[in-house]
Amino acid sequence: MMIVMKAGATQEQVDAVVRRVESVGARAHLSRGEEVTVIGALGDREHVARLGLEGHPGVDHVVPILKPYKLASSQLRHGERTVLDIGGRRIGGDAFALIAGPCTVETRDQTVATARSVRDAGASFFRGGAYKPRTSPYSFQGLGQEGLRLLAEAKAETGLPVVTELMDPRDLESVLEVADVIQVGARNMQNYTLLSEIGRSGCPALIKRGFSSTLEELLMAAEYVLKEGNESVLLCERGIRTFETAYRYTLDLMAVPVLKQLTHLPVIVDPSHAAGRRDLVTPLSLAAAAAGADGIIVEVHPQPDEAICDGPQALATDDFAAYADQVHRAAELAGKELSRV
Amino acid sequence: MMIVMKAGATQEQVDAVVRRVESVGARAHLSRGEEVTVIGALGDREHVARLGLEGHPGVDHVVPILKPYKLASSQLRHGERTVLDIGGRRIGGDAFALIAGPCTVETRDQTVATARSVRDAGASFFRGGAYKPRTSPYSFQGLGQEGLRLLAEAKAETGLPVVTELMDPRDLESVLEVADVIQVGARNMQNYTLLSEIGRSGCPALIKRGFSSTLEELLMAAEYVLKEGNESVLLCERGIRTFETAYRYTLDLMAVPVLKQLTHLPVIVDPSHAAGRRDLVTPLSLAAAAAGADGIIVEVHPQPDEAICDGPQALATDDFAAYADQVHRAAELAGKELSRV
Amino acid sequence: MMIVMKAGATQEQVDAVVRRVESVGARAHLSRGEEVTVIGALGDREHVARLGLEGHPGVDHVVPILKPYKLASSQLRHGERTVLDIGGRRIGGDAFALIAGPCTVETRDQTVATARSVRDAGASFFRGGAYKPRTSPYSFQGLGQEGLRLLAEAKAETGLPVVTELMDPRDLESVLEVADVIQVGARNMQNYTLLSEIGRSGCPALIKRGFSSTLEELLMAAEYVLKEGNESVLLCERGIRTFETAYRYTLDLMAVPVLKQLTHLPVIVDPSHAAGRRDLVTPLSLAAAAAGADGIIVEVHPQPDEAICDGPQALATDDFAAYADQVHRAAELAGKELSRV
Amino acid sequence: MMIVMKAGATQEQVDAVVRRVESVGARAHLSRGEEVTVIGALGDREHVARLGLEGHPGVDHVVPILKPYKLASSQLRHGERTVLDIGGRRIGGDAFALIAGPCTVETRDQTVATARSVRDAGASFFRGGAYKPRTSPYSFQGLGQEGLRLLAEAKAETGLPVVTELMDPRDLESVLEVADVIQVGARNMQNYTLLSEIGRSGCPALIKRGFSSTLEELLMAAEYVLKEGNESVLLCERGIRTFETAYRYTLDLMAVPVLKQLTHLPVIVDPSHAAGRRDLVTPLSLAAAAAGADGIIVEVHPQPDEAICDGPQALATDDFAAYADQVHRAAELAGKELSRV
Repeated sequence: MMIVMKAGATQEQVDAVVRRVESVGARAHLSRGEEVTVIGALGDREHVARLGLEGHPGVDHVVPILKPYKLASSQLRHGERTVLDIGGRRIGGDAFALIAGPCTVETRDQTVATARSVRDAGASFFRGGAYKPRTSPYSFQGLGQEGLRLLAEAKAETGLPVVTELMDPRDLESVLEVADVIQVGARNMQNYTLLSEIGRSGCPALIKRGFSSTLEELLMAAEYVLKEGNESVLLCERGIRTFETAYRYTLDLMAVPVLKQLTHLPVIVDPSHAAGRRDLVTPLSLAAAAAGADGIIVEVHPQPDEAICDGPQALATDDFAAYADQVHRAAELAGKELSRV
Repeated sequence: MMIVMKAGATQEQVDAVVRRVESVGARAHLSRGEEVTVIGALGDREHVARLGLEGHPGVDHVVPILKPYKLASSQLRHGERTVLDIGGRRIGGDAFALIAGPCTVETRDQTVATARSVRDAGASFFRGGAYKPRTSPYSFQGLGQEGLRLLAEAKAETGLPVVTELMDPRDLESVLEVADVIQVGARNMQNYTLLSEIGRSGCPALIKRGFSSTLEELLMAAEYVLKEGNESVLLCERGIRTFETAYRYTLDLMAVPVLKQLTHLPVIVDPSHAAGRRDLVTPLSLAAAAAGADGIIVEVHPQPDEAICDGPQALATDDFAAYADQVHRAAELAGKELSRV
Repeated sequence: MMIVMKAGATQEQVDAVVRRVESVGARAHLSRGEEVTVIGALGDREHVARLGLEGHPGVDHVVPILKPYKLASSQLRHGERTVLDIGGRRIGGDAFALIAGPCTVETRDQTVATARSVRDAGASFFRGGAYKPRTSPYSFQGLGQEGLRLLAEAKAETGLPVVTELMDPRDLESVLEVADVIQVGARNMQNYTLLSEIGRSGCPALIKRGFSSTLEELLMAAEYVLKEGNESVLLCERGIRTFETAYRYTLDLMAVPVLKQLTHLPVIVDPSHAAGRRDLVTPLSLAAAAAGADGIIVEVHPQPDEAICDGPQALATDDFAAYADQVHRAAELAGKELSRV
Repeated sequence: MMIVMKAGATQEQVDAVVRRVESVGARAHLSRGEEVTVIGALGDREHVARLGLEGHPGVDHVVPILKPYKLASSQLRHGERTVLDIGGRRIGGDAFALIAGPCTVETRDQTVATARSVRDAGASFFRGGAYKPRTSPYSFQGLGQEGLRLLAEAKAETGLPVVTELMDPRDLESVLEVADVIQVGARNMQNYTLLSEIGRSGCPALIKRGFSSTLEELLMAAEYVLKEGNESVLLCERGIRTFETAYRYTLDLMAVPVLKQLTHLPVIVDPSHAAGRRDLVTPLSLAAAAAGADGIIVEVHPQPDEAICDGPQALATDDFAAYADQVHRAAELAGKELSRV
């Protein structure tokens, strides 16, 4: 951490900061410039974090130097990338995975038919929501337990590992009975209670970036899971909130190459929620794969126009094989192979 | 809801939309302009909400007309404002309330001393955190149960009603033993599980606006509480995330007059978290009160430099009486009275 | 335009709005719902634009229906795309163009060497700045007239058409002597004086999206040029300003497919300025091409570490051929061909 | 400037950075922490600015330490504030100024009547636009020269100094004939050509913050004027662009106290353009004055419903005296006096 003193800071103020730095067990290192003095606080990350010197007399501002995450950092593995193997499907490194399925589990037919279609077209995982975080309390909130049962049927039928969302820590046990990957939604990305519980469960976690969360905050959310000893974390970019009103969210594809520098964890992209419109899903998926994403999570429905939830953004199962083929070619351009069993 | 058709939409496409509108029990109303046709879908809000016509053939875009919230809407009370009476302190209407206390409950002395100081200086409520949502899993997470016990002591000692945060629905019962108002933090504003539970508890809720949530989303969060029959909801602006890096968050004071048009619920402001710096707390508090806020929630600490958490933004107890007096005068300018027992 | 009345609007207020609509020569069309009345104002765009009914008694809000741009609209050409032919290089439709060169023209050697390298590697246009808009008045502001002369030499030497920026309308004549395309920088996107002058000059314009401009504002900037009878306009996405601090700007690749729906004009992407870092330029370029961009404008320098301006984001001329080849393959994936003579 | 090296940076890379720092005439100062090495580059601001070490081998990132502005900096005057005296009206320090008038000059009657009203109610300056930057080329662009003539009449009639906008450097001479203060609009805040010309003219400049410009960029815009020897600069916050769609712009009142720490220049607020709605103008004006603004620039019109431009946000002249009185009291709360002759 670097403490930048004000131009007019006195020697007493500089000395007081140095004493404060040393009091937490860190070393202070002075650089006196022509206009300002900068004090480096060197030492253990946790000691330094306790300093809290903003607002201290004579201090202009404080610049953090070390990243606040450790276990998620690419330094931890000296540049080696995490490749997860979940139910025989690999994701990360050079393995690219397609995760596909409906926004919401609605009926046995819709669920199983979609799972079969996406498996046949080359998807590696099946996704479907039983618990749905909805902005309005008047909207459909998901089938809950019954939805989990339908996901289990789809899994038995197709062999595809299942990705599904958890919202309430009290539902963890029943979700664990069917989920191969537990999804944490964007709205819960900073629900630290939920993250810690999933960490302790040991089940792989797919963490969606909050729609206004920085990459650093996303990595800190991953850190909550990793800290419990659970090393299986997937990060997912799904669109951020900006000033632009021409689309629902702005898909941030710079997050893909930048996250891959910051962390060893696999990085996937959700083009469906960002766009909110089917016609944007293919170009955004190609762009995500070409940018080097480790996978894509996409919504598919047998009759999108009849979907209870988010139909306008779902691809039709009939179009999915052609879509998967194009995405595959874009991923190859970035040096990836489609992960299949 | 208005459905705007594309310029080249065919008669068949228009007819199909009309049939879809009528199929959910709404009435369709056509306006044909020179360039485009607009179809109004009139009827019950919940029927119309189920339409999902974005992406339908021939549809350009869909414009919602009715607000998605009902119980939070100012129309519900025909312009009359909600005035809450909590432990004898009024907030809302012409009653202005100061809610003050430390970010985190640390020790018995710190807690009780702060409570006494703020009560003597004219605060109406005491605030203090026992459970703290922290970006880093390595940061202090609050004293938990022990913190709740200290809050109970401060309340017994001063008679001030207590505002404290709930993060995990499994802690609801123990929080209810001491809290007069349960705070929902910005990061949990869309934790719908938590909101519904607080709604069912009947305890007054103070909901902080998520740092990237629209006013509409804040009102929908309130709707989750109100829908359970709990009419005691306070809304709190605490700074939003923007492109500006000169401050931690950008305090959005336009939210104050605009929320007061949209809803009958009281609207308060948290200047401490937006600023993150003590020297901005007073000008922002005066501005908030002059803009018509119904109250201010502010952090105070006996020795801010020693605070475990967020010390740089806390006012010193010694300065609090002068601060409260200035804020009071700004609130009077906006036609308010300070709420005292 | 739709005028949504307040829930409690009186018949008199509705009548007054109807009279106002009719007074500007538009037709009023009433839809009465259970809760609110909506008045459609149908008629000529310019009549309706003059209404200004926000804030009128009884009016809740006003919803525009027609896009405010006409000449830039994809409707104008009934879906046919504009393909520009500039100095024998095509851009738009299925023609993909690489525009490459240094941020700033520095010396004869640097300019001509870079132009030769990028031509040999398959670039279609040469870019280089003689006038540089710099945030700081203390930074290098470009070589001006001398820079234009060097660009003319590079053009004579390589045959590549030249793209260069204009900042001051008083420099138009000298810029026209060398420029095949005049660039309008992001900071000048709403400099309407400049846009109109370039429109009148008839020279093709490359308009960079302002870093906080909506797509609609970008299209309105294009409209200023088109309105003067100049049909040769290229739009350029170059990164927008968001809350994320991990990169300089956030490249908005959703703008590519969405602009291509809204307008017939070619859409290109500048990955260099968004990233500000060389290592992000390739993944972002591949993503842009895969998303369907009509071209890429990229910075290249013989010795990036010695560049006067923006060296850290420039590709080295030595690496450019491999880069161009990869981008070409991504553009093919989206159905494009590289534009060459 | 601090150069933070990557965790794995080699001794050769560190040495190369040190050599680079020394090559521009700055001193290098090493701090070796347990995880990373930080190199301070100490010396003249302009030397250091030329370093461009981002992307250099082994460099993780670069942290600027000194502010990039000098003449605008509060350090320049050691904390003393600039108080401008323009036509006998003071602004800055403890002098608070109301600048009022119509968005656009329309007719002689409207102009002179408004000027008289606002003068009688206590305004210190008269504002009015002759050149209007409009998003649409189809909108009214102002009366131009004729508008300037009407402003001159209003000034002759009332004695109020005039504030009016300049868009094109070629109009500078005619604007100087009537303007006491030249306004630079938000869209032109980074039109460096315009800023330099105004600087050279010596006429006081009122610079509006770009709707997505940081405070640092606003101060750099001021620096362009100050650098030409023109010390009369007013800064104006007028709302920034955020994700919130409930209002046109989000008025950023934190800018007021923060700018007053960063710069010695007066800081004023424009509540009219941020809100776009008359009913928000009063609460926002009171908030701005209570936050410590040095003045307010507000739109006033004799018949707002008939205004050619921005009528919905204009106060009526009839209501202006009551408004001015309230604002005055809020400014007093912040220790100011209304500036009158």
